[in-house]
Amino acid sequence: MAAGAYGKVFLVGAGPGAADLITVRGARMLALADVVLYDALVTDEMLALCPQAIKISVGKRSGQRSTAQLEINERLVACARDYKLVVRLKGGDPMIFGRADEELRALEAHGIEVEIVPGITAALAAAAAAKQPLTMRGIARSVAFFTSATAPGQPDDTILPACDTIVQYMGGREAMTTAERLLALGRSPETPVVIVENCSLPGQRVAYLTLGGLRQGIEACTGPVLVMIGNALGPRQA
Amino acid sequence: MAAGAYGKVFLVGAGPGAADLITVRGARMLALADVVLYDALVTDEMLALCPQAIKISVGKRSGQRSTAQLEINERLVACARDYKLVVRLKGGDPMIFGRADEELRALEAHGIEVEIVPGITAALAAAAAAKQPLTMRGIARSVAFFTSATAPGQPDDTILPACDTIVQYMGGREAMTTAERLLALGRSPETPVVIVENCSLPGQRVAYLTLGGLRQGIEACTGPVLVMIGNALGPRQA
Repeated sequence: MAAGAYGKVFLVGAGPGAADLITVRGARMLALADVVLYDALVTDEMLALCPQAIKISVGKRSGQRSTAQLEINERLVACARDYKLVVRLKGGDPMIFGRADEELRALEAHGIEVEIVPGITAALAAAAAAKQPLTMRGIARSVAFFTSATAPGQPDDTILPACDTIVQYMGGREAMTTAERLLALGRSPETPVVIVENCSLPGQRVAYLTLGGLRQGIEACTGPVLVMIGNALGPRQA
Repeated sequence: MAAGAYGKVFLVGAGPGAADLITVRGARMLALADVVLYDALVTDEMLALCPQAIKISVGKRSGQRSTAQLEINERLVACARDYKLVVRLKGGDPMIFGRADEELRALEAHGIEVEIVPGITAALAAAAAAKQPLTMRGIARSVAFFTSATAPGQPDDTILPACDTIVQYMGGREAMTTAERLLALGRSPETPVVIVENCSLPGQRVAYLTLGGLRQGIEACTGPVLVMIGNALGPRQA
């Protein structure tokens, strides 16, 4: 476990997309990095924060996800062997739907020192953009973030979280199934739904719907969508 | 609705405590603010980011929470009448357990323009500090943040969220009740629990426990505690 032979790796949350929604600490690590391995969703504007660094795109190719993750793990270890300060820049927050566990285990297996810098996960950015509190006194004391992991057309066996507010990540067409299942479980068709497309990026769009009317709202979306459901939500002035 | 008569209010998430875990955008708004109304948990180090601003502490006094919130709402409106750029700096993220809804409604009632800057909520900072992914492929596809709202010694009528990973905010003694209830619902006493005390601040402490052994771990805590429960968690090298 000769940790001295390796550099240090920082898993840094890039936040939702806008370059100024990274943390101050995250921006500082980017400015200090020898090498930055970044996801497909990271923008050029954010990469401008590390002009000095070698920049390596490790965006996953769809249909080859596990192979790609193994490759990322191996490249991270190789970079830590060659460089003192390695930043792994991940969309959102590393610990929420970020597969950080696999990268952590690969690095720990080599005794490589790792530090994690949290990021603004998409739900928080979407709530801010739409001015939608995810909790509310007397109305919502819990909020769940979840994702379905089924291919389109496949039956969805995800156990729906039982929470006052529910936020579905990567919630495009999958959210229609979620709505149908929540209605079948007895949630009112009038339950407020807010969807945010292209959160924090140019082309951001916020739509106010209901659980019963979710389908038509989702069908109008083309970019990445975050879907918020619950009684704490409601229309706001723009 | 003469919005022109008022300044603009930014509800800014300060993050978990460390001054460099605010977002770049949040730090910029602090540096531009005419006046900053801040919570009890905001540190002097973070207030050093706004040397030019008038700083007003609006930390809530326990036992007078609703009165204090009404006062905060009124002071926000008064500040927006007197100043062009008002920052309301809130611990964590404004949209999670932040009572942002009440402040938003008070400001909107006067037609005051509001923008929200998200912050790192405590669960993300605690997960980063403890290197604990809150989701994991094949193990945890959902994570819930919740809080109990009962006084010590009172029966807890909170509906426990049904999620793979559960994070209890303000989870000191209340977490013992949560553990008892989860055990009664059939969760294994071996379920991993990770608690983080004084997250991101000097005196930060991480403890690895199990659901069955939660009580002794909590009893050793004196600072603010965040409690994470679920099979995605586990001990990590320091």
